[in-house]
Amino acid sequence: MGRAKTIDEVQLFQETEKLILESGYAGFHFKALSERLGVARSTIYNYYPKKEELITAFMVHLLKQVVTKMDRLSEKEDPVRSMIELWGNYANIHQMMQVMPYIDKKASAKVEESVKEMFRMLQEMKVKIKIILTAEQEKGEVRTDVHMDTLVGLVMAAVQIPMHHASQEDWVKEVYLLINDGLKG
Amino acid sequence: MGRAKTIDEVQLFQETEKLILESGYAGFHFKALSERLGVARSTIYNYYPKKEELITAFMVHLLKQVVTKMDRLSEKEDPVRSMIELWGNYANIHQMMQVMPYIDKKASAKVEESVKEMFRMLQEMKVKIKIILTAEQEKGEVRTDVHMDTLVGLVMAAVQIPMHHASQEDWVKEVYLLINDGLKG
Repeated sequence: MGRAKTIDEVQLFQETEKLILESGYAGFHFKALSERLGVARSTIYNYYPKKEELITAFMVHLLKQVVTKMDRLSEKEDPVRSMIELWGNYANIHQMMQVMPYIDKKASAKVEESVKEMFRMLQEMKVKIKIILTAEQEKGEVRTDVHMDTLVGLVMAAVQIPMHHASQEDWVKEVYLLINDGLKG
Repeated sequence: MGRAKTIDEVQLFQETEKLILESGYAGFHFKALSERLGVARSTIYNYYPKKEELITAFMVHLLKQVVTKMDRLSEKEDPVRSMIELWGNYANIHQMMQVMPYIDKKASAKVEESVKEMFRMLQEMKVKIKIILTAEQEKGEVRTDVHMDTLVGLVMAAVQIPMHHASQEDWVKEVYLLINDGLKG
């Protein structure tokens, strides 16, 4: 018998996220993670020698998902609403990002690479938001009296609005009202 | 002759800010700072044994200034606009905050205390925004169909909108348009 010697990456990422959201960075240790996964701690180390590597690899994974899903937004009837819905679906990214301040960005070359990749993903998000808002301007749905960078900045900043009191559905509804009325003018 | 053995805290904070904004956290060393101030490195160490202590003490200092200035906002004709102006005046806080991820929060007990104090200040800012927005709701200037926490979240998030392309004056004008139209509905 004995414990499994391999890990499914999807499951590893899922438990990483759950553990961080429940216990914060302080409570995030490979010991707790290995117990949840039913594997030996050494098995996790085989994949990720440092916890910083695991966390940042997971962040890159999440951001890539969002960036990929943004491609379909322009086909939607109300791309701005769909974008806020996407932010709502990935509210965990915002919560995970709050762990970033505690992570040693120079823990290893892999961590440094992941952090760079995270910034690249955030840049790509901005480019895609810009494309969407420009198309909406052409349809007369978004104001043109404010610089595009500021409009993009508002949409990006919307992710920071906390979801504490609200269900995801209410959050989307409320944040959409605020952002859309701001963007329309 | 020889170099000064005491430092004026205002000047120390000013040079700290300039050095960080110019060189980032990577380029922030007591060596560079002491050269700018014309004092021996050891003189700075007498006040702040670690650079993390100096940076976080400076952040607390900045946040306290903002929180204090928020008290006068309710007397203004358009408190929302005055609040965005205040955010514009302290845009450096946002830039400084971006250094926070690189700071070891457990570098010393003093750093830990300053970080806690920063969170207390941010909480106090939220309370003050809530008071202002509630008064504006009573005047019919702010919508009531969105939960107060979400309205406060939007105003807090506005600080995150980058100022890159714009002068401070343009940033205030544009961000005010977006936030105010969102808040009014």
